[in-house]
Amino acid sequence: MDHLAHVSNQPNSQPQSQISHLALDIGGSLIKLVYFCRYDDSCRDDDELRSQNESLGSKSDNSRPVLGGKLHFAKFETSKINDCLEFIHSMKLHLGGFHDCTARSSDKIFIKATGGGAYKFADLFKEKLSVSLDKEDEMECLVTGANFLLKAVHQEAFTYLDGQKEFAQIDPNDLYPYLLVNIGSGVSMIKVDGDGKFERVSGTSLGGGTFWGLGRLLTKCKNFDELLELSHQGNNRVIDMLVGDIYGGTDYAKIGLSATTIASSFGKAISDNKELVDYKPEDISRSLLRMISNNIGQISYLNALRFGLKRIFFAGFFIRGHAYTMDTISVAVNFWSKGEAEAMFLRHEGFLGALGAFMSYEKQCLDGLTVNKIPQRFPISVSSAGNKIYCSMNGKSNGNESIECTVYGT
Amino acid sequence: MDHLAHVSNQPNSQPQSQISHLALDIGGSLIKLVYFCRYDDSCRDDDELRSQNESLGSKSDNSRPVLGGKLHFAKFETSKINDCLEFIHSMKLHLGGFHDCTARSSDKIFIKATGGGAYKFADLFKEKLSVSLDKEDEMECLVTGANFLLKAVHQEAFTYLDGQKEFAQIDPNDLYPYLLVNIGSGVSMIKVDGDGKFERVSGTSLGGGTFWGLGRLLTKCKNFDELLELSHQGNNRVIDMLVGDIYGGTDYAKIGLSATTIASSFGKAISDNKELVDYKPEDISRSLLRMISNNIGQISYLNALRFGLKRIFFAGFFIRGHAYTMDTISVAVNFWSKGEAEAMFLRHEGFLGALGAFMSYEKQCLDGLTVNKIPQRFPISVSSAGNKIYCSMNGKSNGNESIECTVYGT
Repeated sequence: MDHLAHVSNQPNSQPQSQISHLALDIGGSLIKLVYFCRYDDSCRDDDELRSQNESLGSKSDNSRPVLGGKLHFAKFETSKINDCLEFIHSMKLHLGGFHDCTARSSDKIFIKATGGGAYKFADLFKEKLSVSLDKEDEMECLVTGANFLLKAVHQEAFTYLDGQKEFAQIDPNDLYPYLLVNIGSGVSMIKVDGDGKFERVSGTSLGGGTFWGLGRLLTKCKNFDELLELSHQGNNRVIDMLVGDIYGGTDYAKIGLSATTIASSFGKAISDNKELVDYKPEDISRSLLRMISNNIGQISYLNALRFGLKRIFFAGFFIRGHAYTMDTISVAVNFWSKGEAEAMFLRHEGFLGALGAFMSYEKQCLDGLTVNKIPQRFPISVSSAGNKIYCSMNGKSNGNESIECTVYGT
Repeated sequence: MDHLAHVSNQPNSQPQSQISHLALDIGGSLIKLVYFCRYDDSCRDDDELRSQNESLGSKSDNSRPVLGGKLHFAKFETSKINDCLEFIHSMKLHLGGFHDCTARSSDKIFIKATGGGAYKFADLFKEKLSVSLDKEDEMECLVTGANFLLKAVHQEAFTYLDGQKEFAQIDPNDLYPYLLVNIGSGVSMIKVDGDGKFERVSGTSLGGGTFWGLGRLLTKCKNFDELLELSHQGNNRVIDMLVGDIYGGTDYAKIGLSATTIASSFGKAISDNKELVDYKPEDISRSLLRMISNNIGQISYLNALRFGLKRIFFAGFFIRGHAYTMDTISVAVNFWSKGEAEAMFLRHEGFLGALGAFMSYEKQCLDGLTVNKIPQRFPISVSSAGNKIYCSMNGKSNGNESIECTVYGT
């Protein structure tokens, strides 16, 4: 019996065609969901995919039945967890867990979950959805998710500098070691040496929660995206104290500081002449974004240097594909490393942990479930054991895009 | 003719007994002044010092006349530079500069000055006080000032952890290399390898200007010290998102993060339920102070590690001998270095640059002017050339204290 069939046998289960896999990453600010839907599931959204499914199926290298589908991504604010529970319930995603075949009671459904909220909200999931959260280590999930994306998904990683986005060709045989910087509410910096081989070497408490927290207090913005959007029109020089402000317009060339270098973030706000209401939210947002992005870039570089890592991948929901954020981080890494290190970004930046939790289903005593790419297009295997989901990208360029997948039954 | 006599010959000069030396460090937020007054100058403040002067004089190792006095320290906000000019004028400190003996016009008085404001406000000093600012490199002055303090002044450096202040015994033969972290409006990190041998290796824009700038915008505080004072009563856990907040009260022991570790500075402020007015200024101040102190400690440690430096000296007017600031920096260095590196502080933390500028007088074509310690008490010489000012501490423990000095004329 394969994994999908197994789930479909549950008392509350749906017809097999509607069964999905669900994994969660519940962070301090956001809940990230990854779920798999077969093309003939209720979450299928267009006919075009069916034809692709058929074409993918024709490329299979064995005689196992093809169950094409997509990995879907969704997010909710952690403070609005009830909306998330409602969404899961309405989509019947909570039925896409697994049963612990080692336990006596086999009617207990487990959903893979990571992040601190997997602990904090375990009782709530039990109460509202009658599922248990099977907790996976947060760092391990981030690394598993990153390794999968970097090895299996075409055009996942890219550089961003001076408004130019350039996809990187990652040779899977030359991926390790690298530094993974996950910018959520806080920031984790992980040295990755291979599949499952990693160490959290550093981090900083100045992360996305700081940007949004301070931003909320300083502006009237109602949400993170609005604050980020505002920064487009802002000018950080209104609030930041520049080298030129201290040096009377000139630079401090002797130590490589130009007149426009920020000497002190928010340093101009020490002036007695202006109150908070006298500053434009746009300018505040811009200064805040630059302060935090630059700081993360700097600490990341120092850690990359420490371990001799040339590549730094930045992920997490702080970035959101935002041009100025990526540009600031890239410039910081470039500036501090004197061009020796390079910042790279991931298209599915916000879902590393959730993807990692999703992929941990294969560790269960169920039939193996392996996420993989389409072999013809992407020759690297994440794993060769058990059932497989072959994945390809659907070509959109925003970070919430779904990934086309094909499942081969046993 | 010795230096003091030289200055006293100027058209605008005062009787020799009132002549002082003055040096300035004009930063983005603060102007720091160091000036030397002989005991019989107008700035002499008690009889007790005269007797000390006499006793110091008796210890002189040569027959040169003894001109005992004190190094005085003062500061003004840069935005209130007119108060500073008024102070200098009323104390006639501007007459304590030097004449450029290589220039044709010898009636031009130069005052040693460093920091960006030495450039920015040069015209203002010319206009208001008829003196030219002789600009000295900022980093060089910081290093000269630090080396002087560390080698010549008794009980200058100390550690601070868990409320315990402990003076450090610095072996002058084992002082170098060290990392000097000067926290002004912004932060400079300088690797010091010897007298005049140094490199600015890093820095961060999150410094004292950020604490005070953001603090002003977020609270009703009227000045830096008030904001610092407020932090005493504050609780950062009200606004910071802790590991325990994300993990439902438990820690993340696997990677060494306790439940009380700050996961995201200001991360709790993302909550929709509270506005700025709902937070106590005390708590805001505490979170801000901890965010910035911790960040500086972390980046400093990473730079110390990079160059194999065991000792990190923190200076600059951000600290102000404030217990919680020093404690946070110490804990950060200890945490990130796993106990390998140690944070140290300086009693004259805010005056390194001004002291360095003061000591640069000896480079002029005037009679040599050398700042030194009392040989009997502190055997290390900063320099053995020319006239000397021997300095000792007067024993007070706050950072603005004056330093007893004795001048030996040629």
